[in-house]
Amino acid sequence: MKRSFIREILEHTTTASISFAGGLPDSKLFPHLALKEAANKVLENQSSLQYSTSTGLTSLKEKIATQYSKDGFATTSDEILITSGSQQALDIITRCYHDRKITIEAPSYLGAMNLFSLNHLEIDSVSLAHDGIEIESFKKSLCKTRFTYLIPDFQNPSGCTYSQEKREVIADIIHQKDALLIEDSPYNKLYFHAPLPSISLLIPKNSFHLGSFSKSLAPALRIGWIRADKKLLEPLIAYKEAMDLHTNGLVQHILDAYLEKETNYEAHLEMLRDSYHDKMLYFTSILNELLPSFIYNKPKGGMFIYGKFKGIDTTILLQKCLEKEVLFVPGAEFYTHNNITNEIRFNFTHSTKEQIKKGLTIIKEVSDKMLS
Amino acid sequence: MKRSFIREILEHTTTASISFAGGLPDSKLFPHLALKEAANKVLENQSSLQYSTSTGLTSLKEKIATQYSKDGFATTSDEILITSGSQQALDIITRCYHDRKITIEAPSYLGAMNLFSLNHLEIDSVSLAHDGIEIESFKKSLCKTRFTYLIPDFQNPSGCTYSQEKREVIADIIHQKDALLIEDSPYNKLYFHAPLPSISLLIPKNSFHLGSFSKSLAPALRIGWIRADKKLLEPLIAYKEAMDLHTNGLVQHILDAYLEKETNYEAHLEMLRDSYHDKMLYFTSILNELLPSFIYNKPKGGMFIYGKFKGIDTTILLQKCLEKEVLFVPGAEFYTHNNITNEIRFNFTHSTKEQIKKGLTIIKEVSDKMLS
Repeated sequence: MKRSFIREILEHTTTASISFAGGLPDSKLFPHLALKEAANKVLENQSSLQYSTSTGLTSLKEKIATQYSKDGFATTSDEILITSGSQQALDIITRCYHDRKITIEAPSYLGAMNLFSLNHLEIDSVSLAHDGIEIESFKKSLCKTRFTYLIPDFQNPSGCTYSQEKREVIADIIHQKDALLIEDSPYNKLYFHAPLPSISLLIPKNSFHLGSFSKSLAPALRIGWIRADKKLLEPLIAYKEAMDLHTNGLVQHILDAYLEKETNYEAHLEMLRDSYHDKMLYFTSILNELLPSFIYNKPKGGMFIYGKFKGIDTTILLQKCLEKEVLFVPGAEFYTHNNITNEIRFNFTHSTKEQIKKGLTIIKEVSDKMLS
Repeated sequence: MKRSFIREILEHTTTASISFAGGLPDSKLFPHLALKEAANKVLENQSSLQYSTSTGLTSLKEKIATQYSKDGFATTSDEILITSGSQQALDIITRCYHDRKITIEAPSYLGAMNLFSLNHLEIDSVSLAHDGIEIESFKKSLCKTRFTYLIPDFQNPSGCTYSQEKREVIADIIHQKDALLIEDSPYNKLYFHAPLPSISLLIPKNSFHLGSFSKSLAPALRIGWIRADKKLLEPLIAYKEAMDLHTNGLVQHILDAYLEKETNYEAHLEMLRDSYHDKMLYFTSILNELLPSFIYNKPKGGMFIYGKFKGIDTTILLQKCLEKEVLFVPGAEFYTHNNITNEIRFNFTHSTKEQIKKGLTIIKEVSDKMLS
């Protein structure tokens, strides 16, 4: 098995590096003091330190279910399975549905593609348009696979947001074919303008909706979940249990105590949206100024700006930029066949404005040299 | 896939139940205040909340490596892979070595047998004698499998401790056949008299040694590890990464801060050993008094008392005891073929002395009725 390019880069990043590579949140915005208060409350006694149930802490599942219901997607706590990040959620599902075919977007999330190959899923890639996956090809592919993995909200890596119309058409197609959808949505709370209703909401009996606190709160919590109909969720529980018994109990309790104060999370999300929106606008303004030949669509949320660099092999560009300690991910990494040579994914959330300016200036200098 | 009998029971346990079933530590002994102090220190700033590396926090790996070296097993931090409990450690290894044959003890750990079947390993069971696995059968089995899973320290479920002589013979056999050993040792710090050198120490290039803080500190931390030669460890890292990116970062930092004060853990272990030894002596004194026909060996550490109940089908006994809210695990659960009818595993660490007395009294009454 191959290791992830991004995680290997991550391990070789020094504090001096400017990294637009990983999907890292802005560390300075983590609510450490509110989490500290929660940890203090939880560790007042010993009850949070024992083994717990495989599906997750009931009161945390209830809070997650309530959030879905508030967003118009009626959900009960027994439709939630807490996982060690949504990465594990994806592993549990595809391990259970191993040896099948699956329709994915091109480009798609690298960590998902690695898991699909680990679980012997045969990948069928369908191109992504600016408003979501290409419908005609999707329909054809789904006839063969009856199983699909999509990231409709501020997609990783493309930043693409599915239009409301496409969401409805896709739900219809999945419903008609009685297929299964894995809807991966770790960025859905990070919208700049308005929240988006999930596709799963339209087809609750045919979908796994994956959520996570990694992007909206802190990755180190490693808390994600699967939202699915009880009938779909039931067979997954035995897998979860065999894999690691249950998700970290101490952190589930800390998170539960943090969410108990409703304003905690809501205020944090407001602040995060504003800050990331501001950073995205800054990043694109510098991009437009320094690298006008980089063609991209402004994202409506999430963490990534994705685009094309005319006449530049971005894998070679990365190698040259690495020497100057500037990192990004070449688009080739996000396709099953690495024949894409001129695309780039930039993460705009992790770096400071100073780093953004400095990093993009270095990329400009290196790319100018390559073109001259 | 079947769910674990024990975990299903666990989920239906009420606070009124007396449970000798799960391998649960004594909740009252969890060092919550020292962990609270550590959590406070860690959450003073935000650095513990970001994504981290797949192999684990370097300073925590160093502390674990130092512990091995102190115990006479020279180890460096890059020979450690931090996992979400040793359950995940076992999953990572057997997922990597899928579709092989494996020699295990009969009886063995239920959670391991579930994982082996999930990872398509063909199990070859060899009987356990009072001082470890039966050598002649082990040798024959290893010729076919060249892969083995053993729990030499206070085995789960049998409580068996391998003699020093058997450890050496087993190491020789594995070395001669160039086979691989998974040595699962979550209980090794819970000795009543003296610590035991691992088998892995004799064959460092042919072994995975699994450790955990679940039994010696608190299960909810979900921190375990694999200790192996770099060559053996390397291919596992890609699996770990694909499965959940990395082990809970916040808890790794909290644990690292807790272990920073060396006396913290050492004093805790001393107290734990004394307390569990005392409870084991109490449990066996009541057993001898109330259930003299229950034949067992006194354990030298760990959490379990295992034995035979003449003339009683222990699965039927459990069903009758469940009505009176007393739980234990019938031996049949720990064999690949459920033809063992009269064995029982008792956990002696979780219940209070009052519960031990009350629970065993109920078991006596129910079994007396069954025999009359």
